[in-house]
Amino acid sequence: MQINLTMLTDFYELTMMNGFLQTDKDNDVAVFDLFFRAQDENTYCIVAGLEQVVEYINNLHFTDDDLKYLVSLNIFSSEFIDKLASFKFSGNLYAVPEGTVVFANEPLIIVEAKLFEAQLLESALLNIVNFQTLIASKAARVCSVANGDVVEFGLRRAQAPDAAVYGARAAVIGGCSGTSNVLAAKMFGLKAKGTHAHSWIMSFNSELEAFRAYASIYPNNCLLLVDTYDTLLSGVPNAIIVMKELESKGYTPSGIRLDSGDLAYLSKQARIMLDNAGLTNAKIFASGDLDEYTISSLISQGAKIDMYGVGTRLITSYSNPSLGGVYKMAALTKNGKIIPKLKISDNPIKMTNPSKKKIIRLIDKSSNMAIADVITLHDEVIDESKEYVLTHPIDRWKTKVVDNFICVELIVPIFINGQLVYKLPNIDSIVSNTKANLKLLWSEYLRIDKPQLYKVDLSDKLYKLKQKLLHDSK
Amino acid sequence: MQINLTMLTDFYELTMMNGFLQTDKDNDVAVFDLFFRAQDENTYCIVAGLEQVVEYINNLHFTDDDLKYLVSLNIFSSEFIDKLASFKFSGNLYAVPEGTVVFANEPLIIVEAKLFEAQLLESALLNIVNFQTLIASKAARVCSVANGDVVEFGLRRAQAPDAAVYGARAAVIGGCSGTSNVLAAKMFGLKAKGTHAHSWIMSFNSELEAFRAYASIYPNNCLLLVDTYDTLLSGVPNAIIVMKELESKGYTPSGIRLDSGDLAYLSKQARIMLDNAGLTNAKIFASGDLDEYTISSLISQGAKIDMYGVGTRLITSYSNPSLGGVYKMAALTKNGKIIPKLKISDNPIKMTNPSKKKIIRLIDKSSNMAIADVITLHDEVIDESKEYVLTHPIDRWKTKVVDNFICVELIVPIFINGQLVYKLPNIDSIVSNTKANLKLLWSEYLRIDKPQLYKVDLSDKLYKLKQKLLHDSK
Repeated sequence: MQINLTMLTDFYELTMMNGFLQTDKDNDVAVFDLFFRAQDENTYCIVAGLEQVVEYINNLHFTDDDLKYLVSLNIFSSEFIDKLASFKFSGNLYAVPEGTVVFANEPLIIVEAKLFEAQLLESALLNIVNFQTLIASKAARVCSVANGDVVEFGLRRAQAPDAAVYGARAAVIGGCSGTSNVLAAKMFGLKAKGTHAHSWIMSFNSELEAFRAYASIYPNNCLLLVDTYDTLLSGVPNAIIVMKELESKGYTPSGIRLDSGDLAYLSKQARIMLDNAGLTNAKIFASGDLDEYTISSLISQGAKIDMYGVGTRLITSYSNPSLGGVYKMAALTKNGKIIPKLKISDNPIKMTNPSKKKIIRLIDKSSNMAIADVITLHDEVIDESKEYVLTHPIDRWKTKVVDNFICVELIVPIFINGQLVYKLPNIDSIVSNTKANLKLLWSEYLRIDKPQLYKVDLSDKLYKLKQKLLHDSK
Repeated sequence: MQINLTMLTDFYELTMMNGFLQTDKDNDVAVFDLFFRAQDENTYCIVAGLEQVVEYINNLHFTDDDLKYLVSLNIFSSEFIDKLASFKFSGNLYAVPEGTVVFANEPLIIVEAKLFEAQLLESALLNIVNFQTLIASKAARVCSVANGDVVEFGLRRAQAPDAAVYGARAAVIGGCSGTSNVLAAKMFGLKAKGTHAHSWIMSFNSELEAFRAYASIYPNNCLLLVDTYDTLLSGVPNAIIVMKELESKGYTPSGIRLDSGDLAYLSKQARIMLDNAGLTNAKIFASGDLDEYTISSLISQGAKIDMYGVGTRLITSYSNPSLGGVYKMAALTKNGKIIPKLKISDNPIKMTNPSKKKIIRLIDKSSNMAIADVITLHDEVIDESKEYVLTHPIDRWKTKVVDNFICVELIVPIFINGQLVYKLPNIDSIVSNTKANLKLLWSEYLRIDKPQLYKVDLSDKLYKLKQKLLHDSK
């Protein structure tokens, strides 16, 4: 990622900003929500990308070169260019911390700032949060079914360098134990993992010679790739010879890697061969077009796999390569008064939730499991000492009375009046947050096949405000 | 993209490089091919990314900070770290220029360099070329069906900032007329396009007021978004009022943008309304989850759309989000002699083509259309004055005799002995190359539904070498 992403914006943000200036609206304070709508696969998501959002905002400034370019387009007023020259973010930004489980329609980020500033941020915020949240969520799904470590292997198939680097970070936030990507490992303190490729084997006169050479250099980290020529006839037998030699020298050989062919069959056969050779502690690592569905299938077939390398299908979220987050105006403030705003649509699902809001997660005190989330107006309070009536966001006749719960607010302040007020956690704390968040959810919400939908309700006040605005618009 | 991507590599490249050094193989010269295998959607591809490959190689160097990090991993020899400190690329690199049409199994890049150097390049080259080629090819498919300009709109859904920036570049190489992405437009000299969002409308007391304000600021570039409240009952009628006002002041209003709903129905109704108002020159711009399939369907339904904004489904290549290019060893040179190498697989399609090669495209002299490509050994010549027998790469009994053709070699030298010998073309030349390349192909090869497969043959010499290596491996 370049240090200065100020120009990473859609052209229409600039034409609108110039327009707000020309119509004296640039200082009107707006509230925008960043959220995603319901999608088949993303019944739950793990938020990621906030650290890069903070870097982006801290680095916001137009260079002379940027301004010269914008002038050359002959569409903007000179007053606008002057204003860009001193642009910085002076508003408030609230967000759900990284590693938190979130659901459709919940604001992950709320920007409360002058229209002129809030508008510029739209494209970059969506770009950063959509992708990292997509990959963290995909990783969480993959790790939720895997019966062993999952390592992120997608650098060569990631959609350009940033996707590899920030995707590796997001994958670890979602649950991966490490990455093959050295740059990402260095930048974020992740575990770098990997051994050798087919080209290593092909650089020697024979597979056995190649294995022996590798074992002599990395006796303590010797995972041998066995599918260059013939997995069961050549690769595994040669690996066994070399691992026994390592053992006789007092080392503990790591195991083998399968990277092609029928992983269920090959892993079972390889396990028998390893066990028969007395290498019961040697691990079997598998890679090759894996995702949550293939891993789940392999496990149900009794495959003997201890660790997984997941590449293309994780780093691109292959089965669903876009989160589809949006950034919608929820309110405009005039003379300190919040005027709630609504985007109307023929499709009720596409209607936005008006005004400045917050998210309250209710957690059952006896089971310590999450009951539901409630999206409320920003100044509402739910009294933990009383019963609370949960109500379906659209079908209001569906209600459920709950008690004995605690309330957790998910959204915290990040910038206030342009000043960073949030201490960014390190990657280990974010990973712990993911684990703690996932622990709050019954497995029925997390399963990959037809999961139960977690309740995300609207408070009565918010629901009534929405109905009033809809009615008034007629 | 960061300027220095040296550390953007898979960890196993480093463990192998250290291994090559320990086994005195680091100076053996290897030949690696970068190519992609047959995929449903990518029956043809447009190569893109070479400019960034050149930048990557020119900037290759490990910083002190990088080396300190690698030392901290406690796995590498100090000799290796010393060698990295002075790392630079000193080999040869050959490539197919950007904008060229290519097919499965054709080497897009050939690296001929010391094993130590060639191995490092693998991950980054694949990352860069896989993504840009994927997006240029997707754009070509979208543009091949569209009956009007296609603008790249994907910034907010791109997989991280680089994907937005380099994806926009690739989309233009594939045929898009511009992008909404300001940073990409500035970096590569693309046309920046866009007008306003729903938030513009919502910032005013009424849609009509918002349209009027926009028209007064941008009278010559006034494309109005009509779906904030109700497209046909409010948006189009208000847009017509404002466009007529613009006309009366002597301006030529641009038209309207539809961004949701049934685009076939809405565009036809809007066209009638615009025409009835005398705005026959006002254009209809459509956006919203478009790709080659939806555009093709809209056209067959008689939709009245003049221009398309294509976002998510182009910038992520949604229906096929990875090209799946690989980087395989084709030869090792010992004492100046090329030893061809083969990666064997149970699946014949996954078998590589051995040795150093080139691609010759045969073009029919009378029609000026491409006949076939032939992958040959690097020192083969096809005599244009004689008949040539094309032979299927696997089913050798399938032959076709051709004459009256010219031969074009697709692969050109980029680096020789580490020196850049290629002049990078500007974006306009690359776009022209794409157009010229696509013109060589009969439409049967380009159609999106069950296209005819273009012939990519192996020369007799190459085929026989492959068979010999397979036989010898038994």
